[in-house]
Amino acid sequence: MLVIVTYDVSTLTKAGRKRLRHVAKICEAVGQRVQQSVFECRVNSMQYEELERNLLQEINQEEDNLRFYRLTEPVDLHVKEYGYFKAIDFEKPLIL
Amino acid sequence: MLVIVTYDVSTLTKAGRKRLRHVAKICEAVGQRVQQSVFECRVNSMQYEELERNLLQEINQEEDNLRFYRLTEPVDLHVKEYGYFKAIDFEKPLIL
Repeated sequence: MLVIVTYDVSTLTKAGRKRLRHVAKICEAVGQRVQQSVFECRVNSMQYEELERNLLQEINQEEDNLRFYRLTEPVDLHVKEYGYFKAIDFEKPLIL
Repeated sequence: MLVIVTYDVSTLTKAGRKRLRHVAKICEAVGQRVQQSVFECRVNSMQYEELERNLLQEINQEEDNLRFYRLTEPVDLHVKEYGYFKAIDFEKPLIL
């Protein structure tokens, strides 16, 4: 499944920036960063649970906001993107 | 349906901040802001088309990134949130 993780933290503080870096690192292990605070993670149920657990350990619940949106397949029907960055679809064949 | 709109723009420039304000205004007409650049919009197909059209007119495709994630019902199964802000569910009864 594809899980969209969005994360809100003030990057004005050093601690906030550090948390954002850690969140990105955790998410990038199972997906990719598509915006500053938006990650698309392709996971199975077990990985999703682990992702959630790891992120909850990282965030500061008093200051941050963390959201998970689980998309149903086929994902193509449910995602649209516009603008300067195009996310890489790792599931499609890579033609060089 | 519930459409998640995420928007990435550098707010370092005055023009960028202005676009972000406009994007927020367009989205808030059909939903609510749940994070700095994440909006949850409850729309029907026609409203979704209009939302997309309006946002595409607003953004700068050279500099910004705009994404739409369409969630299937029941939405409760697909959304999780943690942290300091709890989105208001306008569909639930408001008990005072």
